[in-house]
Amino acid sequence: MDMPALTFTKTASQADGEARACRLETPHGVIATPVFMPVGTQGTVKAMTPAMLEEAGAGLILANTYHLYLRPGRELVKQFGGLHRFMNWKGAILTDSGGFQVFSLGALRKITPDGVLFQSHIDGSKHFISPETAIAIQEDLGADIIMAFDECTPYPATYDQARVSLDMTLNWAKRCQTARTRPDQALFGIVQGGTHLDLRREALERTAEIGFDGYALGGLSVGEPKETMMEIVHEMAPLLPESHPRYVMGVGTPEDIVRCVDCGIDMFDCVMPTRCARNGLLFTKQEKVVIKNARYRDDPSPLDAACDCYTCRNFSRAYLRHLFISREILAMILNTIHNVRFYLRLMEDIRASIQKGEFACFKKDFLNAMAAGDPA
Amino acid sequence: MDMPALTFTKTASQADGEARACRLETPHGVIATPVFMPVGTQGTVKAMTPAMLEEAGAGLILANTYHLYLRPGRELVKQFGGLHRFMNWKGAILTDSGGFQVFSLGALRKITPDGVLFQSHIDGSKHFISPETAIAIQEDLGADIIMAFDECTPYPATYDQARVSLDMTLNWAKRCQTARTRPDQALFGIVQGGTHLDLRREALERTAEIGFDGYALGGLSVGEPKETMMEIVHEMAPLLPESHPRYVMGVGTPEDIVRCVDCGIDMFDCVMPTRCARNGLLFTKQEKVVIKNARYRDDPSPLDAACDCYTCRNFSRAYLRHLFISREILAMILNTIHNVRFYLRLMEDIRASIQKGEFACFKKDFLNAMAAGDPA
Repeated sequence: MDMPALTFTKTASQADGEARACRLETPHGVIATPVFMPVGTQGTVKAMTPAMLEEAGAGLILANTYHLYLRPGRELVKQFGGLHRFMNWKGAILTDSGGFQVFSLGALRKITPDGVLFQSHIDGSKHFISPETAIAIQEDLGADIIMAFDECTPYPATYDQARVSLDMTLNWAKRCQTARTRPDQALFGIVQGGTHLDLRREALERTAEIGFDGYALGGLSVGEPKETMMEIVHEMAPLLPESHPRYVMGVGTPEDIVRCVDCGIDMFDCVMPTRCARNGLLFTKQEKVVIKNARYRDDPSPLDAACDCYTCRNFSRAYLRHLFISREILAMILNTIHNVRFYLRLMEDIRASIQKGEFACFKKDFLNAMAAGDPA
Repeated sequence: MDMPALTFTKTASQADGEARACRLETPHGVIATPVFMPVGTQGTVKAMTPAMLEEAGAGLILANTYHLYLRPGRELVKQFGGLHRFMNWKGAILTDSGGFQVFSLGALRKITPDGVLFQSHIDGSKHFISPETAIAIQEDLGADIIMAFDECTPYPATYDQARVSLDMTLNWAKRCQTARTRPDQALFGIVQGGTHLDLRREALERTAEIGFDGYALGGLSVGEPKETMMEIVHEMAPLLPESHPRYVMGVGTPEDIVRCVDCGIDMFDCVMPTRCARNGLLFTKQEKVVIKNARYRDDPSPLDAACDCYTCRNFSRAYLRHLFISREILAMILNTIHNVRFYLRLMEDIRASIQKGEFACFKKDFLNAMAAGDPA
């Protein structure tokens, strides 16, 4: 490919650490990194309209290939000119490869070196996804960034299990790179290796040798202790090719994100802000608010006085509690708007602090504030 | 009261019929009638933010006293300065008296001439609502328009049953008028009488004698044949005091509304647009769209090409079907936005046709179009 699907330019970096602020140019807009991608599993970020997402400051969202492949189907999305048009999202999209969901199916799937045979969780129908079909499906969906089909090594995995899994992922990574046909999409490789640092290093080297438009650390946030995850990110992130975007998949809490940025990571996705919102757990810098708690019954203050979201500008904690207790759909909407804005504002603050050369200070203050507000 | 809570001025009327366009001035804005009030049972019109309601053109919404009395409670809403502030709705609000819901409780309620003893559908707790408490609760909620506490005569009811019920409602109506203390709220009386026209006429005369700021026809749309309902509205509406707003409670379908406007009715409320939206039944002038139907699977057209709502301006039927089939919250949001806008645009069209002296023609065309599109 002559023209890269992405251009990635560093705009600032931390003098005393790995944190960096970059500019990621995609066919659907310029994304400032570090960036958080809200998760739009089935072609919608749950409980938000595209207009709300835009107002919250989202520029890049994640969609799940597995779910969209099963419903509404790759042909339908392709026929509509791709996912952007189908869901009316003018910003950029990244699709995962479907691997993570397929491997989560447990008894419903069978892995072979060729690919994965699995049964739909919706209707039990049988499907086969290989590296080649994973790429073809993602080309039909038409995201700006697509992911190589990998095996998400489970936790725990022995050294030997992790090595076998790793070899298969690398083999599949080559096949993905060979199979791709669309020069307007960026393809990211995924580094596996379980919790074994030497396997991780080997995976990284061999993935970088194949050559991708960006690199992800996969197989994290899958049940391993938080310290293990952070150790792997801390060791691996600086080794990921410096001139390409670095993505930690499925991470994480606000604290995780700040720590991973400190290791040099540029991209994040997680269901946490949206799922927690639907369960009534709301993020603020001061505390995590369990909105159903009786203490908010007659609390006239906004959820977060420092927040500029529609929810915080217009409603009291007491009203949000009433909506949640009453199981109103508006509870889901307003809670999601806030949590997504919280995450996106966190990323804005992170980027600003990197630009000003103050990230180390920001990180310290943020982690202290979150620890003070944590009920645990 | 020296200053009326409402001023009501006719701006146009049909030469060859009863339809009329009026201007209803409330403490929270000027409402053009005929008006449809979206229903916000628990202090939220289900699946819509206040911003969406405003964009849809809503100026006056209905909230349910029974539900708000039980949760979050009258004291809490009062403490927040009333329902407008609690739910952040800048437009006008009408509260029903709670009678309809209480009487719907069946075995959970006991009616006496003093009032109604009932058990909460939420936690079984016991409560007593009299005409005086119904007014006091509505004064705490603080709506612009409140309703007298009536017994909603069930269908069918014999002549004697309807008479006994009617006498009680009239006795309660007097007590409500005596009990009210807030001059900034309008109080509407409710005309009962079942399906017996002479009882309806008597109820109307005696209700008008007490004197209210507006008059409602109650006990309709409760299971009686459509022809019976229309006969009562046709007979009674023109007899309701001409200089006051006329309201048919709980009505109805788009066709019902057009027919009732033709009888001289000014105000409507119904859960139909919002409830149907959540069930995937969407209104257009051409047809009623059951969005889950397979025929919409790859339909790229908007739900209603003639509609100016956010949903129709931005999404295809195929995407709406995908969201509905996938049980996504966004399905509820987008469907509700459309159906509410459909109802409010219908009212705009009705008002415009009355202003232009073309309502008879509008009614004929509209009913023909709806009949042609009806699968039944």
